[in-house]
Amino acid sequence: MTSPPLRICIWNEYHHERENPDVGKLYADGIHNAVATFLREKLGAGAEVTTATLGEPEHGLTVEKLAATDVLYWWGHAKHLDVQDEIVDRVQQRVLEGMGLVVLHSGHDSKIFKRLLGTRCSLRWREAGERERLWISAPGHPIASGLSGEYFELPHAEMYGEYFDIPQPDDVIFISWFEGGEVFRSGCTFTRGAGKIFYFRPGHETYPIYYDANIQQVLTNAALWAKPSGATYLGECRNPTESLSPIEKRD
Amino acid sequence: MTSPPLRICIWNEYHHERENPDVGKLYADGIHNAVATFLREKLGAGAEVTTATLGEPEHGLTVEKLAATDVLYWWGHAKHLDVQDEIVDRVQQRVLEGMGLVVLHSGHDSKIFKRLLGTRCSLRWREAGERERLWISAPGHPIASGLSGEYFELPHAEMYGEYFDIPQPDDVIFISWFEGGEVFRSGCTFTRGAGKIFYFRPGHETYPIYYDANIQQVLTNAALWAKPSGATYLGECRNPTESLSPIEKRD
Amino acid sequence: MTSPPLRICIWNEYHHERENPDVGKLYADGIHNAVATFLREKLGAGAEVTTATLGEPEHGLTVEKLAATDVLYWWGHAKHLDVQDEIVDRVQQRVLEGMGLVVLHSGHDSKIFKRLLGTRCSLRWREAGERERLWISAPGHPIASGLSGEYFELPHAEMYGEYFDIPQPDDVIFISWFEGGEVFRSGCTFTRGAGKIFYFRPGHETYPIYYDANIQQVLTNAALWAKPSGATYLGECRNPTESLSPIEKRD
Amino acid sequence: MTSPPLRICIWNEYHHERENPDVGKLYADGIHNAVATFLREKLGAGAEVTTATLGEPEHGLTVEKLAATDVLYWWGHAKHLDVQDEIVDRVQQRVLEGMGLVVLHSGHDSKIFKRLLGTRCSLRWREAGERERLWISAPGHPIASGLSGEYFELPHAEMYGEYFDIPQPDDVIFISWFEGGEVFRSGCTFTRGAGKIFYFRPGHETYPIYYDANIQQVLTNAALWAKPSGATYLGECRNPTESLSPIEKRD
Repeated sequence: MTSPPLRICIWNEYHHERENPDVGKLYADGIHNAVATFLREKLGAGAEVTTATLGEPEHGLTVEKLAATDVLYWWGHAKHLDVQDEIVDRVQQRVLEGMGLVVLHSGHDSKIFKRLLGTRCSLRWREAGERERLWISAPGHPIASGLSGEYFELPHAEMYGEYFDIPQPDDVIFISWFEGGEVFRSGCTFTRGAGKIFYFRPGHETYPIYYDANIQQVLTNAALWAKPSGATYLGECRNPTESLSPIEKRD
Repeated sequence: MTSPPLRICIWNEYHHERENPDVGKLYADGIHNAVATFLREKLGAGAEVTTATLGEPEHGLTVEKLAATDVLYWWGHAKHLDVQDEIVDRVQQRVLEGMGLVVLHSGHDSKIFKRLLGTRCSLRWREAGERERLWISAPGHPIASGLSGEYFELPHAEMYGEYFDIPQPDDVIFISWFEGGEVFRSGCTFTRGAGKIFYFRPGHETYPIYYDANIQQVLTNAALWAKPSGATYLGECRNPTESLSPIEKRD
Repeated sequence: MTSPPLRICIWNEYHHERENPDVGKLYADGIHNAVATFLREKLGAGAEVTTATLGEPEHGLTVEKLAATDVLYWWGHAKHLDVQDEIVDRVQQRVLEGMGLVVLHSGHDSKIFKRLLGTRCSLRWREAGERERLWISAPGHPIASGLSGEYFELPHAEMYGEYFDIPQPDDVIFISWFEGGEVFRSGCTFTRGAGKIFYFRPGHETYPIYYDANIQQVLTNAALWAKPSGATYLGECRNPTESLSPIEKRD
Repeated sequence: MTSPPLRICIWNEYHHERENPDVGKLYADGIHNAVATFLREKLGAGAEVTTATLGEPEHGLTVEKLAATDVLYWWGHAKHLDVQDEIVDRVQQRVLEGMGLVVLHSGHDSKIFKRLLGTRCSLRWREAGERERLWISAPGHPIASGLSGEYFELPHAEMYGEYFDIPQPDDVIFISWFEGGEVFRSGCTFTRGAGKIFYFRPGHETYPIYYDANIQQVLTNAALWAKPSGATYLGECRNPTESLSPIEKRD
């Protein structure tokens, strides 16, 4: 059995890389292309990886494009409010139908993430370049595949801390320790309709997070895990007036 | 320790009872007053029960009213779209802050329920007056308190069937069997922010559901379970620049 | 990337087929071989499927055999108490380490299932050859892959009904409706340590359940879903006396 | 409505306090009496608090005693293996029937906790008197009631770190940060049968943990949360040969 290639799209608001020279140096082609590059390398013929950005017509997320996407990665930070509600509706519908969604770092505050979770997705944060240590709290989960040891570290990271205002995740795969004193549920899965969602905390634009081998391993695993794989999703009410089994007449 | 009375508000779109003579006969003062009446009887001095309806200014759900509500019951069916988005925002905020929400029957399709869950909340349905048997699937849950036996029955009910498009509930307390061949997760709990949500399936307006002793027991339990009881909810991002523990200087 | 074949072992107490002529006619080579046959057909070169039975030395589940097993299927009914505790210990340890476990039908009452879940796993049952209709309640789950429609049926089945005494499953993929009036959570997943567990209700020995196309689809999906795939499992306590980050001296 | 007093029993192996002078000084009457004392103060007439210890006949947990216990607290550390299996069976049965169980600190390695969870409950640990900061990750949970702020601290604690080998909890109410670099799910709830279980990490015998106001608040909340409150638990299989609804005759 050969499966058709997984159709992955990396979406990026693509703002910091063009406005902030430090970020531009780190991610010369944008964070979307940095992510696309390692996914192509690691998944090879198993995936077709494309990108889309906020500035494109319909933010690059046309009906056709989304219909042809199995897993969508989302990077947004400064421009969440510039994403049109109509496109958010469209992405939500595709997630419910089964498209995987991988929400990166500051995407916790995106319209699409808050729409799907129903909460504020607020958190505590500090930008101090501190150490982050991600502990594996669900070792059997496919998203932890290929990681060795009990934890991995990022030498410099923006801190995100609890309370993280999300509904109870299906699984919490990583819990972060921060040097400055906080903890965070850094790898969380959710299901909405037929769609699988993975939120992954690391990723600030001023650190080389997406060049880190462990981060790349996790985000590659996420694509394989989040791909559509179930039965048909039923998003509309059904009203079959004939019953399947007989109903006795009574008063 | 005496607790102050639980402040309960029953919200109703209050449409069918005034438009449909059969419903009007069954629920002469509206479904909201039928629910309020048995909650008052069963909770006595432990609760102050009020009502609010769609036709009142701000649908009866002013900022002040919601601030003074511990648990809100929601009955809507034909007029979901008439509920203003601003009021939905307000109810959502209060749920996140800790107000309990009990969503009744056709409220599965209300704006507030879909807002909090992030899915379509669609289902299969049939109006044929068939038998419903609710099996207790979480006997230890406070919402099942005081029920005897393995199940209870409703002789005539509208059918709701799976697939019910909701995120995985925290607990599924009842699973219904329908004479015509369907099943349904009829009692589901969710947490959003600091708020507890209970969805309870039974309740069609043309059947005397809210006069049934088991239904009354469940909905009384729900108030006690859904009341606010935790720590302070934090719905806004916090940015403490000073760290709690020292951060080593590195390059 | 070609993965090595999935190493599947079907375990059977292999009693009814040899003692009861009706069962022997239906499953001439034993239920284990019926299951092994369709898994081989459907998974092809992707799997190596073997069998083991109660009567073999160490019930066919030697240390070496289990170490070389990725997913174990379990069929037991009349001989649960004949399974040695030492072998149950061994299977439990392998599940915690990551081996998948698929528990079939009457296996709900097996030592290994109760050991892993911590509850009685008791249920309501009736043998009356009644109709069962399995509704898909988690359409996005990989175990529901390839099923069409909202449900599938078995014309004759033993009834299992709620309350099913299990901890809250990770996912409930199927909920059954029974003609005689009961419901049941018929497809349930659990995680224990690094191991994935799937309980699947259908399967009585006197009905041709394992020849049914939908049943075969589900049980094939289960193997792919339950395979080990995460990080290293840590089943022993660790006591690293050196801290990873500096600890301030205080009194 | 006045409820009868909650019948709470604090169980302790009562070893360290009598063998280790430092512990004996800290908990002169044993940890069980320290816990019993603050529960009596805080719950007043709402509770009857008793104690039981390993050295008593049947470890103080006779059939009669357990039948008259609503919530059992468990403190064990060095003598887990001295607890008789028959008593573990008995406690498990009572939990399934609805008795609440609050497992303290090193009780993670007790027979009863591992029996109910099905995993090894292993973890990482270090005794270095380091700082622990417990972050509230489920602010709406009754067990977090009355706590103020985003976290609370213990100046000196034994470290417990992830991976903590437990099944996915129902709720994770606290996540700890440790000065030396680890994180831990420090407040976890589980349901088994009709019984509610709360595991609470803090509590090493060489630190005055049980005299801390926040710890006392949490453990008082736990009693109120864990009390039996649902419907009747069904731990035995039921075989009603008559069906509730008619079954059509077919071949």
